[in-house]
Amino acid sequence: MKSDKKVSAAVIQRLPRYYRYLGDLLDNDIMRISSKELSIRMGITASQIRQDLNNFGSFGQQGYGYNVATLYDEIGRILGLDKSYALILIGAGNFGQALAGYPYFARRGYSFVALFDNDPEIIGKTVGGVEVLDVVSLPQYLQTHHVDIAVLTLPGYVANQAACILANAGIKGIWNFSGTDLHVPLGIIVENVRLTDSLMTLSYMINEDEIIRRALPKSISTESVD
Amino acid sequence: MKSDKKVSAAVIQRLPRYYRYLGDLLDNDIMRISSKELSIRMGITASQIRQDLNNFGSFGQQGYGYNVATLYDEIGRILGLDKSYALILIGAGNFGQALAGYPYFARRGYSFVALFDNDPEIIGKTVGGVEVLDVVSLPQYLQTHHVDIAVLTLPGYVANQAACILANAGIKGIWNFSGTDLHVPLGIIVENVRLTDSLMTLSYMINEDEIIRRALPKSISTESVD
Repeated sequence: MKSDKKVSAAVIQRLPRYYRYLGDLLDNDIMRISSKELSIRMGITASQIRQDLNNFGSFGQQGYGYNVATLYDEIGRILGLDKSYALILIGAGNFGQALAGYPYFARRGYSFVALFDNDPEIIGKTVGGVEVLDVVSLPQYLQTHHVDIAVLTLPGYVANQAACILANAGIKGIWNFSGTDLHVPLGIIVENVRLTDSLMTLSYMINEDEIIRRALPKSISTESVD
Repeated sequence: MKSDKKVSAAVIQRLPRYYRYLGDLLDNDIMRISSKELSIRMGITASQIRQDLNNFGSFGQQGYGYNVATLYDEIGRILGLDKSYALILIGAGNFGQALAGYPYFARRGYSFVALFDNDPEIIGKTVGGVEVLDVVSLPQYLQTHHVDIAVLTLPGYVANQAACILANAGIKGIWNFSGTDLHVPLGIIVENVRLTDSLMTLSYMINEDEIIRRALPKSISTESVD
């Protein structure tokens, strides 16, 4: 990968999707694909695909297309999936436990090494083979253990307090499900997942669609959102 | 709302964030705010805010700013939060159960009316006061009950099969956690949440940041991603 070139956030966000489609092709023993065929499957233009992948070097061959296995491995490497990551999770309620117990993450190299909560009924419980520790021991834990990513599945009003402890300990990445914008120092990467925002967007689209349907005499359709 | 004007997906996706910030202002008894002040809090330019909100009519007053309560209610109405939605969930494993049991959704008008699974150990269980039904009864259920949104928290390889049943029953919206792209007829709104893609994006950013740090003699910082 060319480290001197800034790749746009939009391209980066499309990479996991390429990775997923290429994995499906491999599962179906398709070893070679043109940007045009990939374009039809993914619903992205062929020129967009060529442009996206050119960011990371020259993968395709004129008249041959892409070697699926090579491209799959290479995108996996770009995404850092050839490495393993130590994850902690803060907020081991139902949602946090569901995330921590999801086996797919571990298969991709994302391993939970500790879970934290403040609820005495949850502390001491084991989820996916990992014990839930008292959140008061978090600062000490971070001093003695290597952690790559912290997953925040706690309520919004305590999220920034946790983020502050994580920042002081030099954590590089936060996967933030708290629904709150985190105020962290530059240098910490935050990936936000806002489930409620996503659901609100969906209901907005449904309502919008209803209004258009009612305004028009015959039934029409809108495109699905990706 | 002007139904004759197409609002961009980017604007729609920002609306829940406005709604959240305005709710926080109300909680702190701030009843009036200028686009500039809101801009500083949200990290969006003031002109972007004015442009976004102009899509839905004229909310601000020159020299006064926005009336927080009015704007909050109005955005809530635009998002359809003044209505209530009947949700079903298909795939009541740990993650599905965590979603179905999350009280915040019900408070916003999103109520789970039925959950479905194919696992005999899960069928008959009650989550958040709602019983898990056998997924074979899904087509019949849809014939006799009103459902606005179906939440797909099942494995990717069966997601399109479920989507087909939902499409035949005329479901308007699908909140898709299956990680698979759904092939649904035009007219059905699909909102995808791809947790694994999100985690991969985060680890990519961490790696990219590492590479830049190593390439430069002194330590630098990158901006956090929102």
